[in-house]
Amino acid sequence: MSLKSVTHIDNVKLSEDGNSVIIIDQTKLPNRTEYLDLRTAKDIYDAIFHLKVRGAPAIGIFAGYGMYVLAKNIKADNFDDFYSEFSKLKEYINSSRPTAVNLSHALERMDKIVFENRDNGIDVILQLMFEESKKIHEEDIAMCKAISEYGLTLVKEGDGILTHCNAGPLATSRYGTGLGTLFLAKERGIELKAFCDETRPLLQGARLTTYELQKAGIDCTLICDNMASIVMKEGKINACFVGCDRVAANGDVANKIGTSGVAILAKHYGIPFYVFCPSSTIDFNCETGADIKIEQRAPEEIKEKFYVEPMALPEVKCYNPAFDVTDNELVTAIVTEKGICRSPYKENLATLFKETEK
Amino acid sequence: MSLKSVTHIDNVKLSEDGNSVIIIDQTKLPNRTEYLDLRTAKDIYDAIFHLKVRGAPAIGIFAGYGMYVLAKNIKADNFDDFYSEFSKLKEYINSSRPTAVNLSHALERMDKIVFENRDNGIDVILQLMFEESKKIHEEDIAMCKAISEYGLTLVKEGDGILTHCNAGPLATSRYGTGLGTLFLAKERGIELKAFCDETRPLLQGARLTTYELQKAGIDCTLICDNMASIVMKEGKINACFVGCDRVAANGDVANKIGTSGVAILAKHYGIPFYVFCPSSTIDFNCETGADIKIEQRAPEEIKEKFYVEPMALPEVKCYNPAFDVTDNELVTAIVTEKGICRSPYKENLATLFKETEK
Repeated sequence: MSLKSVTHIDNVKLSEDGNSVIIIDQTKLPNRTEYLDLRTAKDIYDAIFHLKVRGAPAIGIFAGYGMYVLAKNIKADNFDDFYSEFSKLKEYINSSRPTAVNLSHALERMDKIVFENRDNGIDVILQLMFEESKKIHEEDIAMCKAISEYGLTLVKEGDGILTHCNAGPLATSRYGTGLGTLFLAKERGIELKAFCDETRPLLQGARLTTYELQKAGIDCTLICDNMASIVMKEGKINACFVGCDRVAANGDVANKIGTSGVAILAKHYGIPFYVFCPSSTIDFNCETGADIKIEQRAPEEIKEKFYVEPMALPEVKCYNPAFDVTDNELVTAIVTEKGICRSPYKENLATLFKETEK
Repeated sequence: MSLKSVTHIDNVKLSEDGNSVIIIDQTKLPNRTEYLDLRTAKDIYDAIFHLKVRGAPAIGIFAGYGMYVLAKNIKADNFDDFYSEFSKLKEYINSSRPTAVNLSHALERMDKIVFENRDNGIDVILQLMFEESKKIHEEDIAMCKAISEYGLTLVKEGDGILTHCNAGPLATSRYGTGLGTLFLAKERGIELKAFCDETRPLLQGARLTTYELQKAGIDCTLICDNMASIVMKEGKINACFVGCDRVAANGDVANKIGTSGVAILAKHYGIPFYVFCPSSTIDFNCETGADIKIEQRAPEEIKEKFYVEPMALPEVKCYNPAFDVTDNELVTAIVTEKGICRSPYKENLATLFKETEK
């Protein structure tokens, strides 16, 4: 196997002088690749609030670097003043997307570093904050890479992979979860062919997934969601790869709307259906998929968003669930950084986690 | 059962004075319901060419009325001059969409009426053309109604019906094929609930189907194609109703892209999947679906059409088949104006047609 040079997208990084965080403005994709250089608290808050940076892991990485950049500019000659200002900034950034778990988790890690080193002086604190923010980023890369290494054992040269929604580098770091195997395969000189569901109504597959794959030189073809059946029937697909938002203890999977349909088609055509996620996505407190509440979103997303003019009459009702639940019987395997888990999920997920916690 | 007044869409009709054909401009739907009053050969040609009137049966009806309107304005005092001018007009209109079978079929019917009455005088010819054009229209209404009557035997009050693409009045006359049962049910006071796939990439479900149903006061809800699985899983759907473009002798069905996916989901959830079509759609010369060539269309339909700006990079490839083939094993029944046909299709389709030809 030859190692290939792959152009990874640096969706979030610290600037060279460490005085700003540089991100790709995801709201401008795919038509304009614009990098933003962010250095004020308001810049950083707005970037999260306006979804210029999105994807839970990416937001966490961004918040780590962001707090380091902001801390450097705190004017204080003692720890108490420094920490008081740091805490205000932290609360402000945390309020940008209150439900994002990775955001508050990253902010707590930065807080802990600051507070635990209260007796070591501000210079040391800043150095340790720098290291911690790098660590948050590197840990995510390592986790995505571990998931992708397991994913690599499931494919071979020339395989066609169906993707749904976006679980790539823009939402995480470097590799992604559901897409990570495709990037790692490219690095290892293994050519895969991706077929990407556009993923209505928000078109993350069209706007983000094909953008990431095309930029990395990975063979990709955009299809409408309703074309998944024909590409499977025509023998173009060897496996389906999706990310996920939450896995129940029994292996039921909540992910972007349409995922369950892909899984049913895959079963019909005898094609394996793989779910990729960090182990933190598995919720052992959630017994089955029936316990997962599905968010309903506005009709405008279906009728109006992206269009020159509306595609249906104003009085036409829409049903717009953001997610669906894929029954565990349709899932060939769940791929985490701790290993590949197969049916029966209830027993095997529990065992995998007990073993790795030893 | 109480008969209800239902607002049917008159997509094609002769004006009261018989000097023009009035159509809904389908290119302006759903945002503007504009009626066009067409009286010149160029008007009539352009309406077909620019898809202001679309749907094979609707084009046939339009061409019948159109030739009558044009014939009235022919200045000739003998049959030969009249027929020479008529033939030129007929060829011109026929060239507007050369592959539309219903168009040339309707024009041939009008031609036959003219030529067979060459000795009866132009006034008689014009009266018979008027009657023939009405007959083409009435025959289509009767056929759609017969299909819909059979469809009514498959539903009950309150049923949820999943639709894909558009097989309604705009493409035919008054009832439609796949949608006809919904309109006839409404007339009979039976309330059904339609869930309409938007049907990417051309969005006929959003733009046309919900328009037709909403205008007729039928309960309808627009969904994205990838939401068909969740509405089935949630118990909202009792049957799937689709039209079709071609049925092979073995019952394989070619229809709008995504139809096969709907059929697979329906089978998974144990929901009946019905195909509605005139018997002329069944092609006994076509043995199986494998013999049906699938038209590939331009990538711009997926990446650009309807949008303010493109949804994927220019260099991203698209795969854009216009149709797919649904295997006969997934089809619960094929509903035609001659009756309802079930598996085994090869034998039963042949028998149904032999019996009705007796």
